[in-house]
Amino acid sequence: MSVDLAGWSCPLPLRDHTRIVLGHGGGGKLTQELVEHLFLPAFRTDLPSPLGELGDSAVFELPGGAPRLAFSTDTYVVRPLFFPGGSIGDLAVNGTINDVAMSGAVPVALSAGFVLEEGLELGVLGRVAEEMGSAARLAGVPIATGDTKVVESGKADGLYVTTAGFGLIPDGVRVAPGRAAPGDVVIVSGDIGVHGIAVLSVREGLEFGTAIETDSAPLHGLVQAMLAAGNDPAETVHTLRDPTRGGVAATLTEIARAAKAGIEIAESALPVPDAVRGACSFLGLDPLDIANEGKLVAFVPAAAADAVLEAMQAHQHGRRATVIGRVVDEHAGIVVARTPYGATRVIDVPLGEALPRIC
Amino acid sequence: MSVDLAGWSCPLPLRDHTRIVLGHGGGGKLTQELVEHLFLPAFRTDLPSPLGELGDSAVFELPGGAPRLAFSTDTYVVRPLFFPGGSIGDLAVNGTINDVAMSGAVPVALSAGFVLEEGLELGVLGRVAEEMGSAARLAGVPIATGDTKVVESGKADGLYVTTAGFGLIPDGVRVAPGRAAPGDVVIVSGDIGVHGIAVLSVREGLEFGTAIETDSAPLHGLVQAMLAAGNDPAETVHTLRDPTRGGVAATLTEIARAAKAGIEIAESALPVPDAVRGACSFLGLDPLDIANEGKLVAFVPAAAADAVLEAMQAHQHGRRATVIGRVVDEHAGIVVARTPYGATRVIDVPLGEALPRIC
Repeated sequence: MSVDLAGWSCPLPLRDHTRIVLGHGGGGKLTQELVEHLFLPAFRTDLPSPLGELGDSAVFELPGGAPRLAFSTDTYVVRPLFFPGGSIGDLAVNGTINDVAMSGAVPVALSAGFVLEEGLELGVLGRVAEEMGSAARLAGVPIATGDTKVVESGKADGLYVTTAGFGLIPDGVRVAPGRAAPGDVVIVSGDIGVHGIAVLSVREGLEFGTAIETDSAPLHGLVQAMLAAGNDPAETVHTLRDPTRGGVAATLTEIARAAKAGIEIAESALPVPDAVRGACSFLGLDPLDIANEGKLVAFVPAAAADAVLEAMQAHQHGRRATVIGRVVDEHAGIVVARTPYGATRVIDVPLGEALPRIC
Repeated sequence: MSVDLAGWSCPLPLRDHTRIVLGHGGGGKLTQELVEHLFLPAFRTDLPSPLGELGDSAVFELPGGAPRLAFSTDTYVVRPLFFPGGSIGDLAVNGTINDVAMSGAVPVALSAGFVLEEGLELGVLGRVAEEMGSAARLAGVPIATGDTKVVESGKADGLYVTTAGFGLIPDGVRVAPGRAAPGDVVIVSGDIGVHGIAVLSVREGLEFGTAIETDSAPLHGLVQAMLAAGNDPAETVHTLRDPTRGGVAATLTEIARAAKAGIEIAESALPVPDAVRGACSFLGLDPLDIANEGKLVAFVPAAAADAVLEAMQAHQHGRRATVIGRVVDEHAGIVVARTPYGATRVIDVPLGEALPRIC
């Protein structure tokens, strides 16, 4: 209320934009800048707050000897609402479950807040709600509370939904972006680029006949199986991240920065399905930049890597898990890929996103 | 994914609409029907879930002897973004804090999920974020995690924000919609109708010169002061609700239904400021139907009523607290108002809302 608009200024220019552009929502550099230069300064507080950690979820100590709590939220504006293999509904449920799971937590419950456009068919809303309910039941995580608002026709695009969720972190689990350390093995839980290409395949006049479906899936079961693969969960998994917007590239560069270490991956080791590779060639996109929904990237101490990989491959959501690289002492904060020809290239975060509204 | 669209049908007709209308977001009967006939059946689960209770927040037992946890969410689409005395920013922070507080909880943290429209001025977003940060600091509840999505120009209205939050319920506190009981005194924490009229005063070509500003405020401090007014918190406050969309009328009818008891209020006891009364006369609206943001309605055992009222009036957000009625054995589920002329009228929930997008 007492904010002085005239006195407000952006602490650093946001790439010289004075208005929001689609790239601010892409999960790349523009999104990072919006968070670091606009939201974090505005939300700064002297209160005990985990805001500065910027993991997929915020972690809290509770009184009374209770487990730590992980809390996260995600907003979904994917277009179209239904796409091969999924919809905004299961995406919204699985996405927040996964953000909570990436701190090692077992998700407890979700909330759902809807923005509905006047004129939306009730049948469409019902179908989205049914898919949310199905996904929640399949994951074993109830949607426990919600809110609905309606805006005039032309002020939304069918519907948007924001889910939030919380979970409890078992004793001994210590999963955080900053824990990745030189020597750690980098494991991806399966094929990359699938969700983004599945959505693109029905959009933007790009309709092309791939047989590819979204990989949207809840990953908390896989995470708990991984943590159980070693004797000491804190030295079984150091870091987890689901490579959604910005793809595996954004995930790796963010972890390299948080851990103040370098990451080296082998391009030939990346599990890229033929349909994704073909679509990326056609569109001039890098599979590393494409959004995933049902995949995770894990940073695992070398001593635990074999056991974790085995546990992943034994789980329905990790059958094609594979090692793609390692954390190194050199080039702190930088990710490099070794190409099949023995050369290396630096992996950078995309500025925005090749095509917006992918999730 | 495996939902059969052809087989999906609305369990009961939603007032014969086949499409979303603005009234579905108004917090009245249409909203109730959407929740009861569309969302609840879709989200049904055999999992332990507090969904059926339909309080302002969902309450969970945590393992390890920890306090119970309250969890809630609210979506904000208020238009305009800035209005007399407030903005979508402080509304989004205070609103979710209050939903959590209405279960007797002390709020711990909030999340924020944004839908931004391409072309939104960064200065406007910055001002909203600053007002969210200010409100969070003032309330002592950090915004701990968030997400941002951008949609094309013409697919939103500046920005929408969904906040979620959780809090911890102190030992011995038992606040729930169903606990209101015959004999309880109904107390409102101050003037009613203020927020709605403040927003209307700058909208819809209705610009009229009231000096009225929104009453948006965080109420968790007031709630804890009320609970501390008696020896046994469970018998000091039975039920709390913040009368936002749908106003005091919707709150009272919902509590009457949940408690399976009647409620009788005295119209002459309702604290309606002159500016609200004047605007309502002019527009043909009932002050009981108008949205509030920084007010609560409490159901308090008669033995504790004097102490609770005194504690409220000693608090900055309860100075004008006053008794407006009582819970009765008769007409279960029905709210009646005694008019100044000694007659009674039944208070019903509005179908939609007189003017949409008030919060």
